[in-house]
Amino acid sequence: MKAIAVRRGETSPSLVEHPRPEPGPGEALVRTLRVGVDGTDHGVLAGGHGQFPAGAEHMVLGHEAVGVVADPNGTGFEAGDVVVPTVRRQSNGPNEYFARGEPDMAPAGEYVERGIEGAHGFMAEYFTSPAETLVEVPSAFAELGFLVEPISITVKAMEHARASRSAFDWSPESALVLGNGSLGLLTLAMFREPFDRLYCLGRRDRPDPSIELIEALDATYVDSRETPVSEVADMHEGMDVVYEATGYPKHAFESIRALAPNGVAALLGVPDPWTFEIDGGALHRELVLHNKALVGSVNSNVGHFERAVDTLGDFPGWFLDDLVTGVYGIDEFGQAFADDDTTIKAAVEFGTR
Amino acid sequence: MKAIAVRRGETSPSLVEHPRPEPGPGEALVRTLRVGVDGTDHGVLAGGHGQFPAGAEHMVLGHEAVGVVADPNGTGFEAGDVVVPTVRRQSNGPNEYFARGEPDMAPAGEYVERGIEGAHGFMAEYFTSPAETLVEVPSAFAELGFLVEPISITVKAMEHARASRSAFDWSPESALVLGNGSLGLLTLAMFREPFDRLYCLGRRDRPDPSIELIEALDATYVDSRETPVSEVADMHEGMDVVYEATGYPKHAFESIRALAPNGVAALLGVPDPWTFEIDGGALHRELVLHNKALVGSVNSNVGHFERAVDTLGDFPGWFLDDLVTGVYGIDEFGQAFADDDTTIKAAVEFGTR
Repeated sequence: MKAIAVRRGETSPSLVEHPRPEPGPGEALVRTLRVGVDGTDHGVLAGGHGQFPAGAEHMVLGHEAVGVVADPNGTGFEAGDVVVPTVRRQSNGPNEYFARGEPDMAPAGEYVERGIEGAHGFMAEYFTSPAETLVEVPSAFAELGFLVEPISITVKAMEHARASRSAFDWSPESALVLGNGSLGLLTLAMFREPFDRLYCLGRRDRPDPSIELIEALDATYVDSRETPVSEVADMHEGMDVVYEATGYPKHAFESIRALAPNGVAALLGVPDPWTFEIDGGALHRELVLHNKALVGSVNSNVGHFERAVDTLGDFPGWFLDDLVTGVYGIDEFGQAFADDDTTIKAAVEFGTR
Repeated sequence: MKAIAVRRGETSPSLVEHPRPEPGPGEALVRTLRVGVDGTDHGVLAGGHGQFPAGAEHMVLGHEAVGVVADPNGTGFEAGDVVVPTVRRQSNGPNEYFARGEPDMAPAGEYVERGIEGAHGFMAEYFTSPAETLVEVPSAFAELGFLVEPISITVKAMEHARASRSAFDWSPESALVLGNGSLGLLTLAMFREPFDRLYCLGRRDRPDPSIELIEALDATYVDSRETPVSEVADMHEGMDVVYEATGYPKHAFESIRALAPNGVAALLGVPDPWTFEIDGGALHRELVLHNKALVGSVNSNVGHFERAVDTLGDFPGWFLDDLVTGVYGIDEFGQAFADDDTTIKAAVEFGTR
């Protein structure tokens, strides 16, 4: 079958011939509908994530998928069910994290991630997956279900961030999203309801489709070239929540200054090592004297996917129309990997329902 | 009346004559029994905290007090009740944080702190305090009740740290306390029950009374000159909890490396500004990929004090005997402020019950 993969030693995707998988016990065979592309995929292409599957000369890309069950293979699914797969799989035999439904909390070594690290992804005409890793979604989401995975990432991060503030009375009103990529914009849309005042930081010139979307969401665009993260609190206001989706490590630490008292920064970027100076004394003091928190968050589990399905259903149509700037057939997959200022969210379409 | 204070422009405590306070409406008059000394007091003497009370030429020291109600003044207390005062008071008119019993979460500008910032402390023969800031303790704690305040600091910090891990199944087993001062050792004793394996980091040579106490608590002493925080995970194990009580800002950031996956560092130090290099990329990546959290915590409220009273009652007598290395009368108060390797916890005694 056709698949989109990165070949060993290469840094751009290729169309490859890949064996069509046979479902094992407990697995369903899924016919792929669409697979989204995000910053993690670009990181995988650049070699910034993990290993290829053992012995493989290429790794099939893609971790944001929606598909339709082709062969239930004795699982509880029915042929035609629309499903979204989670990303992590056990790699080292059974472990407690997967057993209790929290693979997102498993430490390195206990998992592979499909399309990211050590396992083939979903950018192929078919994939197999254990039934417990497939989340059924309404058939109306056959087209946009590839957004469930990125939404679930924010669902999880915000559950952890909110939990960190649950030992006291906390009524957040303001939030700053760092990053105007697709995850940042999805998060901004998710933040419309819980927060009164939204800000989104990027470094783009107008006119720009992401800035237009930020403003259509009634958020304030903050140009980091004019207002660095460390000055946001002075120029705008202290933020009850900062959500970091840039992978720029100075933001992780500068977010302490952007927070209002008792605020929390959810960190999601996965940068490479980089040594730089910080005023660690002042940042440490500020974290303590104003009860601030930094919470790192990675991956998501079935519960987060299920709540993400509800979230996707709540998004207005105009937002989704503007967010998804392109859906490309297999033969034009390269456009889905474009990393330019006109692309917000793109996907490859392998089939239709 | 006699009081121990820091005079404007000085950095060591003095015995001063201070007006005996008259209780206002809703306030009780308390006859002071004992007041403990901790690192914050040394910080106040060094000028590292806030302002003196407006117009005052000295600030009475001390925030860790136990006393006995001398004049209930129409509050619900009875003369002879043994009480411990909380530290923060409203400074700027009523505010929501104090109204809901969470003065510990109030931002700068909304409070003063008795003996620390903007208000006289408790190191005097008498003090007054609003009834809602006085926590009654069993009369058996008339001698050691000055330990309730520092214990409450850890009660609060750990409530926030645990809350930050409440969005998933978390069963911490290992904990590292950074700092072998009195707060670190009190915390280590509090950690005996919830954790299986304890570590405490300091930089002292043997023989040393704090190292003896660490080992009597069945904890492993980690000499930071041999094993820096960043190497603790490799030399010993990754820690589910790190509790920072050193005020050394590199520890705040290096604690990320000392944590086990899904671990949390509670930060309590209040350092001065200090710029230094960190591998911010690697630390950010590690926070995210292993779902780690940093939680700053300051001060504590009545609920924390009440739970601290229970904790104090659970400590074994030998621990308290070894922890409190000196209780000094007013005329020898200087010894309570000694900052040497034989002093763990000292207090000034103003009276007995």
